[in-house]
Amino acid sequence: VNRKDAEGLDRADDLAPFRARFELAERPIYMDGNSLGPPSSAVAAALTRAAREWQDDLVEGWETWIDRPGTVGDRLGRLLGAADGQVLVCDSTTVNLYKLAWAAIAHQAGRRVIVAEAGDFPTDRYVLQGLAETHGLQLRLVETRGDDPEGALEKAMDSDTALVCLSHVHFRTGRKLAADRLTAAAHDRGALILWDLAHSAGSVPVDLDGWEADLAVGCTYKHLNAGPGSPGFLYVRRSLQDDLRQPIWGWFGQDNQFEMETAYRPRPGIGSFLAGTPGILSLAAVDAAVALVQSAGPIRLYAKAERMTRLLFESARERLVPLGADIITPKDPTRRGAHVSVSHPRAWPWCRALIDRRLVVADFRTPDVIRLGPGSLYSRFVDCYDAVEAMAQVMEDGFPDAAVRRRVT
Amino acid sequence: VNRKDAEGLDRADDLAPFRARFELAERPIYMDGNSLGPPSSAVAAALTRAAREWQDDLVEGWETWIDRPGTVGDRLGRLLGAADGQVLVCDSTTVNLYKLAWAAIAHQAGRRVIVAEAGDFPTDRYVLQGLAETHGLQLRLVETRGDDPEGALEKAMDSDTALVCLSHVHFRTGRKLAADRLTAAAHDRGALILWDLAHSAGSVPVDLDGWEADLAVGCTYKHLNAGPGSPGFLYVRRSLQDDLRQPIWGWFGQDNQFEMETAYRPRPGIGSFLAGTPGILSLAAVDAAVALVQSAGPIRLYAKAERMTRLLFESARERLVPLGADIITPKDPTRRGAHVSVSHPRAWPWCRALIDRRLVVADFRTPDVIRLGPGSLYSRFVDCYDAVEAMAQVMEDGFPDAAVRRRVT
Repeated sequence: VNRKDAEGLDRADDLAPFRARFELAERPIYMDGNSLGPPSSAVAAALTRAAREWQDDLVEGWETWIDRPGTVGDRLGRLLGAADGQVLVCDSTTVNLYKLAWAAIAHQAGRRVIVAEAGDFPTDRYVLQGLAETHGLQLRLVETRGDDPEGALEKAMDSDTALVCLSHVHFRTGRKLAADRLTAAAHDRGALILWDLAHSAGSVPVDLDGWEADLAVGCTYKHLNAGPGSPGFLYVRRSLQDDLRQPIWGWFGQDNQFEMETAYRPRPGIGSFLAGTPGILSLAAVDAAVALVQSAGPIRLYAKAERMTRLLFESARERLVPLGADIITPKDPTRRGAHVSVSHPRAWPWCRALIDRRLVVADFRTPDVIRLGPGSLYSRFVDCYDAVEAMAQVMEDGFPDAAVRRRVT
Repeated sequence: VNRKDAEGLDRADDLAPFRARFELAERPIYMDGNSLGPPSSAVAAALTRAAREWQDDLVEGWETWIDRPGTVGDRLGRLLGAADGQVLVCDSTTVNLYKLAWAAIAHQAGRRVIVAEAGDFPTDRYVLQGLAETHGLQLRLVETRGDDPEGALEKAMDSDTALVCLSHVHFRTGRKLAADRLTAAAHDRGALILWDLAHSAGSVPVDLDGWEADLAVGCTYKHLNAGPGSPGFLYVRRSLQDDLRQPIWGWFGQDNQFEMETAYRPRPGIGSFLAGTPGILSLAAVDAAVALVQSAGPIRLYAKAERMTRLLFESARERLVPLGADIITPKDPTRRGAHVSVSHPRAWPWCRALIDRRLVVADFRTPDVIRLGPGSLYSRFVDCYDAVEAMAQVMEDGFPDAAVRRRVT
């Protein structure tokens, strides 16, 4: 890989004009879009517009706001291969995961096992651990080292499995699981499957209806760029919606909400998975963020993500591996998401030096991983190239030790 | 009551200058602050500032954002009579109610009854109904007609009561319960008590520590004016925090969050009641909204609310009762919150006509209630006077029937 290749890819990049919608500085190079996407002018304008709507319409705004979790959900659903009426934007990813996993377990009464991955994202494991402990179930955490994580996961599923809960793209390694195969495997054993799409939505093709997935959750602040702590989303397959009941019985999940009847009676359809009053300003941001991805064309966007990932991977192989780094992201492009991770014993001070010298903002994951997550709407191929070069340069120049500080994904 | 009295009260009103912070039209008169508060310039500026912070700091913003649920919670806590470290701003009121009620029930294992009010706000009843059904408990819904609601509620509490869950100010009638007395009554029977402060926060004195309350939740989009669907809050008494465990085990509730350890181990203190990633833009709005209330001086604010409520009550008695309306808000000023409710068989078309003629935006509650909820930061005494006059005028002039449409509180 040389810089001319990257420049050529940028010249041929149909999405290049989208960078102008993001006010990004030249340096440091932002390679942390898989942790927190940057703001676009579209999202900034949507926030201003939403605040104005609040000013102008006051309480009457609710005439239209009230449907937003579903209308924004439908728009997002189109990116996720979900027909209308199956996606809601609401609550946090964690709360949504809790609601759906609880509903799945209740539906599968009699089965006593939840299957998940040992190295999955903490909030997923913690939510499942909590549900397992309070429902007297077993949480079976599967180690997935080696080239066949799907095989290891399939082996752990059996006729006692109530729920399989997996991340489509792994937060640490960027490894992508074969979602269709694993969904079929879960169904073969009579289990339900819940996909966490936090690192997938907006970065890799997702086909929830095509996979025949049961449930999914995810977040909108990474590759969808909707803002720090913007709402999560949830998906419930249409044919399951009236069979599942979630635990948080709130007034937004109630049929005839404004009749304020004595007893709770869940709305038909996806609406029963709502709980409390949705955040209207943040929903406006999500709507604009998803619309921007749509206007760029998801297929072009995923293709660019794959090419950027390839360039990062190849550059890292050439420049960082000789300096003692390991690439923990799969070599096979069909098994990768949209970020590349390298491990190194001095990953933290290395990452810190890159930030302190205003070269690259990358993402450290304890104990020894640096993630590089460009965004197809705003990153250039030369950014990927230059980021790896800067990493190599800093390693060659040397850097001091640094105390580990907390970071949020 | 005549208009000159109202004008005199406005002239003497120290808070009058705060109206300029809200871009409110002269007509229609906004009397729905107990449903959705209007935006202030402070909140608008905070949203712009937060979006700028996202732009400038990107993922590094989390160095400070991460503590916001607690720091904004502490600031709000000062309005609620809560010492630092007991309040979080996070999730929705409904989700917070679920988390705290679940935690209380688990802590009170062996006791089989939840006591609540039959006419309480739907989401409260629904959440409790869901918890009762899934935990095999009895939800005892108490009718509280008459002058002694506290007596009726006390009678329903017994040694089998796990949790008492009540709204401090009633959403429909504006009736305020004697929180200290009922808290003591719950404790006498070994029950925990959870207060819903949705209609209290920012409008009437609240003294959680003084009441010796166990738990509380509430919302920030009514009298705190933080925006449509802005986050809820929760309070857990310090001495209970390490004994209670909430059901949604997320990574924000985990000790050493960024160690990403295998097993969930809740943070000490109030932090264990967090779940997923908090919404940073909406937290900025809440922070600014609470700061504005603080800068106005809560004591002056509550005093003005009481005087406005009195003026509304007296005007309604003189002008609306002769036209067939009933006032369902208590006559005793010490037993009222900050809104006044009248009932009338034609409440809906009456309310609709007031809006359609651009006179007053009030709040309809099915089947027959109109609520008048001024805001002490932005409403004038003449607004209260004119709103009731407009209601009388419309009733005298006559208005057509109208189909009921949904409204959100």
